[in-house]
Amino acid sequence: MLTELKREAYEANLLLPKYGLINLTFGNASALDRARGIFAIKPSGVDYTVLKAKDMVLVDLEGKKIEGKLNPSSDTPTHRRLYLGFEKVGGIVHTHSSHATSFAQAGRAVPIFGTTHADYFYGEIPVTRKMTKQEISNGAYEWETGNVILERFKKLDPLDCPAVLVNRHAPFTWGLTVAKAVEVAVAAECCAHMALMSLQLVPKLGEIEPELLNKHFKRKHGPGAYYGQKK
Amino acid sequence: MLTELKREAYEANLLLPKYGLINLTFGNASALDRARGIFAIKPSGVDYTVLKAKDMVLVDLEGKKIEGKLNPSSDTPTHRRLYLGFEKVGGIVHTHSSHATSFAQAGRAVPIFGTTHADYFYGEIPVTRKMTKQEISNGAYEWETGNVILERFKKLDPLDCPAVLVNRHAPFTWGLTVAKAVEVAVAAECCAHMALMSLQLVPKLGEIEPELLNKHFKRKHGPGAYYGQKK
Amino acid sequence: MLTELKREAYEANLLLPKYGLINLTFGNASALDRARGIFAIKPSGVDYTVLKAKDMVLVDLEGKKIEGKLNPSSDTPTHRRLYLGFEKVGGIVHTHSSHATSFAQAGRAVPIFGTTHADYFYGEIPVTRKMTKQEISNGAYEWETGNVILERFKKLDPLDCPAVLVNRHAPFTWGLTVAKAVEVAVAAECCAHMALMSLQLVPKLGEIEPELLNKHFKRKHGPGAYYGQKK
Amino acid sequence: MLTELKREAYEANLLLPKYGLINLTFGNASALDRARGIFAIKPSGVDYTVLKAKDMVLVDLEGKKIEGKLNPSSDTPTHRRLYLGFEKVGGIVHTHSSHATSFAQAGRAVPIFGTTHADYFYGEIPVTRKMTKQEISNGAYEWETGNVILERFKKLDPLDCPAVLVNRHAPFTWGLTVAKAVEVAVAAECCAHMALMSLQLVPKLGEIEPELLNKHFKRKHGPGAYYGQKK
Repeated sequence: MLTELKREAYEANLLLPKYGLINLTFGNASALDRARGIFAIKPSGVDYTVLKAKDMVLVDLEGKKIEGKLNPSSDTPTHRRLYLGFEKVGGIVHTHSSHATSFAQAGRAVPIFGTTHADYFYGEIPVTRKMTKQEISNGAYEWETGNVILERFKKLDPLDCPAVLVNRHAPFTWGLTVAKAVEVAVAAECCAHMALMSLQLVPKLGEIEPELLNKHFKRKHGPGAYYGQKK
Repeated sequence: MLTELKREAYEANLLLPKYGLINLTFGNASALDRARGIFAIKPSGVDYTVLKAKDMVLVDLEGKKIEGKLNPSSDTPTHRRLYLGFEKVGGIVHTHSSHATSFAQAGRAVPIFGTTHADYFYGEIPVTRKMTKQEISNGAYEWETGNVILERFKKLDPLDCPAVLVNRHAPFTWGLTVAKAVEVAVAAECCAHMALMSLQLVPKLGEIEPELLNKHFKRKHGPGAYYGQKK
Repeated sequence: MLTELKREAYEANLLLPKYGLINLTFGNASALDRARGIFAIKPSGVDYTVLKAKDMVLVDLEGKKIEGKLNPSSDTPTHRRLYLGFEKVGGIVHTHSSHATSFAQAGRAVPIFGTTHADYFYGEIPVTRKMTKQEISNGAYEWETGNVILERFKKLDPLDCPAVLVNRHAPFTWGLTVAKAVEVAVAAECCAHMALMSLQLVPKLGEIEPELLNKHFKRKHGPGAYYGQKK
Repeated sequence: MLTELKREAYEANLLLPKYGLINLTFGNASALDRARGIFAIKPSGVDYTVLKAKDMVLVDLEGKKIEGKLNPSSDTPTHRRLYLGFEKVGGIVHTHSSHATSFAQAGRAVPIFGTTHADYFYGEIPVTRKMTKQEISNGAYEWETGNVILERFKKLDPLDCPAVLVNRHAPFTWGLTVAKAVEVAVAAECCAHMALMSLQLVPKLGEIEPELLNKHFKRKHGPGAYYGQKK
């Protein structure tokens, strides 16, 4: 069932260690078939070296397991919450990539210092507030993780800023497809790394000028985009 | 004799350079058969590229070499001391992995800043006190290294915190099996790297909130664990 | 047409990810046939893993596409502007390599601290001024990027200093051939990395002494050069 | 002639990029046959990917080329000066490895903070004084480089401390054999990396205690050594 969706999710999961975004089994990717309301997600705690496409678990947007012998990722409720809240998103990636996670642990957004960042994100990579004791302990921790992300995006367009840092935790990224969400995860890690180094060079460095941000983001996104090839 | 134990220790040793935890010949892994009171350990100073499973040296918990043509690791008495002091531990790993060792050299524990750390360790990765002149020079230096580790763990459960930094030296990690001790060594290095960067971002960063630590550690350990697959 | 030129440009482009200078599709290389006034450049946004020599796009120095099914790199006008302004240059490389880009984002030149740097650059790697709103938004942003580079080089010989950091953006490098421009891109990244670390060790570190700069640069460049083999 | 010596030097040279100690063509290794007074050294500026054992150049201790079609490394007079000054040394390695070179550029010795360092060096990795204008410009720059190294070692045993940082330049390492000199080059880079990070954690960190230095160095060197296997 939904073999192609499982293959998409599987291939995205395999790219995470390939791009150096994953240590051990920290991280997961999922792909959504929005028409059917079903997504394919990595099984929990399975080593990437033994993972197979058929191991992907199918879950519906009510949280019911539809197919799969294995338990889905423990982060499944976060993915589900985001799919419900971000209506255009078709793929989600969660990693503990080192540099982005270092910002998340420190509770700091990744400031937007240059055009590399502006090519992918229309502003800083935001960080959520810390979760409350209640949210952590009410038995729906991973669902609440999705809620604090949505709270942070009340005034943000998730496709203008396709990444977030969960405070004390790590990044989530997304996109129209899971392949795009993987690409954004690479970009977020790379921008976090460079932001950290730019801060070492100029500790009070200001953010990129608005006109340059506009130029680079819109070179790649929206009706005036001219980067890349026509599809 | 004990071919399977030697194979386990051998494979764990090979993972150390594979995961980038080892430069040159710094480091070693051992696996214990507690019923027999015998452990298999890497021979001293042998290059990982020529190491074979049959080179593993068998040593008993009294410190007597049971089998093997080569000298066991010079750190053998530290492993032995830990096996005697930590009664549930079945495997031990010692590396000089760069980031964890940088904390050890500086005499600082690795603070617990995020959930990556909380997934593996129920608190900071502690550092021992410095060893005394007497302990260093009494002819049982490696045994005394084990003693200062045990002293540091008087009030700590070694399975809640399966790693330590020996002051001025480097990390030791452990687990129910040597495969688990390798996994912990990867996690310790990764957490040390991210802690260093989080400190660069926020020099006085506080540690993770207790409820989040509890949540993440217990998601993976103990009776309420729900991460991964049923075994 | 110009098969050899396209092959040169293609091979240079492939070296960029191989040397770790490129993440995702950030970056491009071009090679010029100055007699014909035509250069071969990477197509825009094409993944390096699927790139072929025949995908290279031929563009003339008036900016007209001469051959190629794909759109040329969006940075094509910058390459063209530099070829027009730097009359001896035969190849140009643009990357977002992490350390050099971190200096560019911070608006800082890479100071010349040692002989590694002096072997390639006769002074610091300069940074341009920031671009004005007008330059960014007048519809010729990439051409204006070339202009601010040329402005910075009014009093500099581009072969004495074959690299620049575009403020808030990233490095461009060049040389008599595109192969040389790739080599310079590696050197610029490596020197930026080491400069950052030297600054961590001595925050107010002064630049290399003039006689040592002269010695190393001239050991490799100009009539008195004695490094390498006679050609 | 001296095929085995050339092979030794060749294999040592190939290890330098393999261990990540070399970017581009920065660096070289040589092996000495002291009885004959001849050493084999890398040819100047030749790419490691095309280097062959028979390309190694034979030079005698008076500086005369004995065999080889190519020019020897431009650093040949430094190697020669060190072979003449350090009478037990049989192999020399020069790299521009990133972390050690960052200390050299900053004019700082690599402080000895832990046992990893103490396993290889009986104290800090020293840095030379800066070279004078006269030494740089008198036509024998590379020979004078050897002289400032020897000056720094007036009161040091080169086998107790088999590495030096040339101020503003980069490290040289040595040993009884060139294979050992490569191993020391790896250790020097690794210790420089960790020292930089330990300094970030504790900016005024003191050096390792003398008894621990003694213990670790002598565990591996001299009559009381017990690390490794009997030869």
